[in-house]
Amino acid sequence: MREAYHEELASISDDLVEMANLVGSAISLATTALLDADLQLAESVISADERVDDLQRDLENRAIAVLARQQPVATDLRIVVTSLRMSADLERAGDLAQHVAKLARMRYPERAVPRDLRRTVLEMGQLAQRLMAQAAEVVISQDVDAGLQMEKDDDRMDELHRMVFQHLMDEKWQHGVETAVDVALVGRYYERFADHAVSVARCVVFLVTGEHVDELPADGFT
Amino acid sequence: MREAYHEELASISDDLVEMANLVGSAISLATTALLDADLQLAESVISADERVDDLQRDLENRAIAVLARQQPVATDLRIVVTSLRMSADLERAGDLAQHVAKLARMRYPERAVPRDLRRTVLEMGQLAQRLMAQAAEVVISQDVDAGLQMEKDDDRMDELHRMVFQHLMDEKWQHGVETAVDVALVGRYYERFADHAVSVARCVVFLVTGEHVDELPADGFT
Repeated sequence: MREAYHEELASISDDLVEMANLVGSAISLATTALLDADLQLAESVISADERVDDLQRDLENRAIAVLARQQPVATDLRIVVTSLRMSADLERAGDLAQHVAKLARMRYPERAVPRDLRRTVLEMGQLAQRLMAQAAEVVISQDVDAGLQMEKDDDRMDELHRMVFQHLMDEKWQHGVETAVDVALVGRYYERFADHAVSVARCVVFLVTGEHVDELPADGFT
Repeated sequence: MREAYHEELASISDDLVEMANLVGSAISLATTALLDADLQLAESVISADERVDDLQRDLENRAIAVLARQQPVATDLRIVVTSLRMSADLERAGDLAQHVAKLARMRYPERAVPRDLRRTVLEMGQLAQRLMAQAAEVVISQDVDAGLQMEKDDDRMDELHRMVFQHLMDEKWQHGVETAVDVALVGRYYERFADHAVSVARCVVFLVTGEHVDELPADGFT
């Protein structure tokens, strides 16, 4: 009985890692689709999100089943409840990757991101993927230091987000309003995506240490 | 013992209603601050969000305490787990109201929203508040029909969101890039806020009927 129970907890954790891997690769592919105006890739990212949604629903049902059947207390109870929150973060991150892909699709065959912002957007995409890979690692390793380190890496995302806005607001901006709006939204999608990755790591830190990491505002400059 | 338990469940529900009322009034005040460039009002919305965050943290701790001490099963278990999700929606909606207020503050003494979009933004703000008031009502009444009706009211928000975008993208747009980006983000804040209100109602519908309402994509046109 107890063994089946710990297997159940382990399988919930496996699903969180799978979700993180899926949305990490979704944001990476969506970034490529966006920068290269690759319609087929965009479509594949958009349809792949269903798998993430299914995993989340399934994880939720199993978490509730564990609560009902096993009635965990103390740490185990917190693990189950926190996994619900982590899965909600990951599902939402998947939606954001999908939004990036949908923008690529909407502007196809044009490229939504002008040449002078490609490098910044590419870095945001790579950083988003890396943060999500780190989140998956932290779920596996329960490594508090690695979790806290992610807060610092996320600072770089905020910096990139700010850079994108400064660029848009510059008087020399010459790509028009539509592109400015596209880029502003994309910037926000990456920033939010990174925030969900950091939130997953924060959940692990909380589980291990019992202490809440102070949440930073979602975007300090708006 | 059982009575204390049901009191605990009722108090969790009371807190959800209080959170919904707070964020409903926050979005309304933030809209006024935004449209009137009222700095003092914006500041008060920004600092009031702390109360919502406190309520959420407190609710979470009590929900976990109920799970540990009372070990609810079946419907009671679902009520507790779903209240965690509803409180996360409400906390996030509070952040979005705060984002609207922060934009008002950032542009002060200018007005972030140009004259020709004031009416649309005002309607978005009023609709956002109304949807949140309805969500609070649905939490109290557990009225499935009222919950489902909110999906239709939310369609109007999506329509307004689309109108804002069409307006921005119009060749006749003459307010420049900065204002376009501001308005695009504000449009998204309202749309997301409404989505969180609808999500709260969906949780109630699920609790009462046991059936998931199919979630619509967060924004169908990006």
